[in-house]
Amino acid sequence: MSEIRQDLSSKDWTIFATERSRRPSDFKKTKEKKFSNEYEKKCPFCKGNEDMTPKEILSIKSGRNWSVRVVPNKYPALKPKKDYGRSIGRHIEGPYLSIDGVGSHEVIIESPKHNEDLYNMKLSQIENVIKAYRKRFITLSCKGNCQLIVIFRNHGGRAGTSLNHPHSQLAAIPFVPGFVRNKLYESERYFNNSGRCVYCDIMKYEIKAGERIICDNKDFIAFAPYASLSPYSVQIFPKEHQACFSEISEGNTKYLASILGTILKKLYYVLDDPDYNYVIDSAPVGQKGNRHYHWHLEIFPRLSTRAGFEIGSGININTVLPEKCAKSLRDYNV
Amino acid sequence: MSEIRQDLSSKDWTIFATERSRRPSDFKKTKEKKFSNEYEKKCPFCKGNEDMTPKEILSIKSGRNWSVRVVPNKYPALKPKKDYGRSIGRHIEGPYLSIDGVGSHEVIIESPKHNEDLYNMKLSQIENVIKAYRKRFITLSCKGNCQLIVIFRNHGGRAGTSLNHPHSQLAAIPFVPGFVRNKLYESERYFNNSGRCVYCDIMKYEIKAGERIICDNKDFIAFAPYASLSPYSVQIFPKEHQACFSEISEGNTKYLASILGTILKKLYYVLDDPDYNYVIDSAPVGQKGNRHYHWHLEIFPRLSTRAGFEIGSGININTVLPEKCAKSLRDYNV
Repeated sequence: MSEIRQDLSSKDWTIFATERSRRPSDFKKTKEKKFSNEYEKKCPFCKGNEDMTPKEILSIKSGRNWSVRVVPNKYPALKPKKDYGRSIGRHIEGPYLSIDGVGSHEVIIESPKHNEDLYNMKLSQIENVIKAYRKRFITLSCKGNCQLIVIFRNHGGRAGTSLNHPHSQLAAIPFVPGFVRNKLYESERYFNNSGRCVYCDIMKYEIKAGERIICDNKDFIAFAPYASLSPYSVQIFPKEHQACFSEISEGNTKYLASILGTILKKLYYVLDDPDYNYVIDSAPVGQKGNRHYHWHLEIFPRLSTRAGFEIGSGININTVLPEKCAKSLRDYNV
Repeated sequence: MSEIRQDLSSKDWTIFATERSRRPSDFKKTKEKKFSNEYEKKCPFCKGNEDMTPKEILSIKSGRNWSVRVVPNKYPALKPKKDYGRSIGRHIEGPYLSIDGVGSHEVIIESPKHNEDLYNMKLSQIENVIKAYRKRFITLSCKGNCQLIVIFRNHGGRAGTSLNHPHSQLAAIPFVPGFVRNKLYESERYFNNSGRCVYCDIMKYEIKAGERIICDNKDFIAFAPYASLSPYSVQIFPKEHQACFSEISEGNTKYLASILGTILKKLYYVLDDPDYNYVIDSAPVGQKGNRHYHWHLEIFPRLSTRAGFEIGSGININTVLPEKCAKSLRDYNV
């Protein structure tokens, strides 16, 4: 009999079908290792090729050289409006509505070196990446049209990467989609009933239970969520209540960098460099400081394929219990 | 500037980023053609290997032989409870809730032949597949624990198929997930405001506009939805208002079979045998006959990869406008 678990924050369900389960090693791919150099002539993100990207938005220095660069995405899904006012073009066609694709779509180039990656970077380099996230998040939060900022990273072909040079992306969106609104709504209901943040309660319980915890440090904790959507997905939460990613302090960034690097290193070795996505799930910019949401970073290794059942029902089938995932990641020392 | 379109029924948004777009031919894969035989010795779904599947639930005959068989999935995500009452085991762990994985997970074997597929089957064979869907849907609707039935088909590796023999699947689920509840809620709001089914209104407008229509017949119409979630996705609707798939009459099945076969043939030739999923999106079994929902079949060719942006925001980025998709499918004569 499989087990169907409810996510306490979204109230959505995940089916755990462990009879369909596979051992961690079964997820391993037999892919070719990429032996690339520090510099690749055709890579627009490599040091020395700065003129191949659109005009730089931000650069974090390390000594005389850049350590992290932020540039506009060359093929943006959303583009800034020159006059960045609050109004966005709205268009009616029969019963339908559309709006102009106003917003931002940026690339965070995480290193001058082509052959580095977050799992093997120096802590100070990862910290610079987080600092760039934070700066862009805070700056874009002030734009009139921006309602939600999504920071995400695609690693490997199954996760949708088109360029190997280490990078993440940021999108500033002019509305709050239903998917996010639903999570806000459920966490607000929980707050109304209990007077507490549902995510703070989850963390408190997870620390007590222990079996889904992977690791923690002064400011952050990482665990496999009770109703995790897919095998080996991991959530990283700030221990202090913070609704919006912009509430992370400059001093906190080091601790986020440290736990993120640790988790990615564990995943790299336990699952043999899995393709993955991670996203920073934050309250909308207009809800900074709210009492009921709690930003977090969630990593989704791409080990299974979303098929017709998931598309039709919105329910995920997960073949690995989070307790098992947490144990194998916790036990692997990096 | 990209265009962000709102889906009138779900009120969710899709970003159309046509600057990222590619021509239909760019989606074509250079995959090896499968030259398989009518009979494969190791295939549990082939005629002659009937003892390799769990015990048959239903069989549709053609003369003396079976044409379509329904069997339990050997690795089910959900399993029937022997005493099929309304109660399902509920379990509490700290603040969390889980329920037993009670339900059904069945496989519809669409043909005795290994090397057939829906796009090249005889109409009578496709009709038998639809008849099997209908029979199982109606039977499972009466089970006490069943709230939602999802019929789906995974075609090709990118769509999550593990067996090549033509087959689809059915899952009977003991709750209505948030994803479905949201669509029901939005269509009910629309009905409350207008007194009309939002899907009937969409169909009426699409027929008037014409540019997103692909084809139709006496009882069904196929078009590319205004805010389609992914390139070349197609919706097939019964023209008459029907909330639940169980409302399809025995006589209707022929027309659904015919339009489904036509669309799959068009997709096969225009996109060179794309991997795809299709799902039948129906009102929950307890809402048969409601005025505001309208069941339909939706096909999702798997041409793009869901990445961090989609996972984090719940918003899809689509690189092909539905008008363009409809034109190329409409213009290809089968």
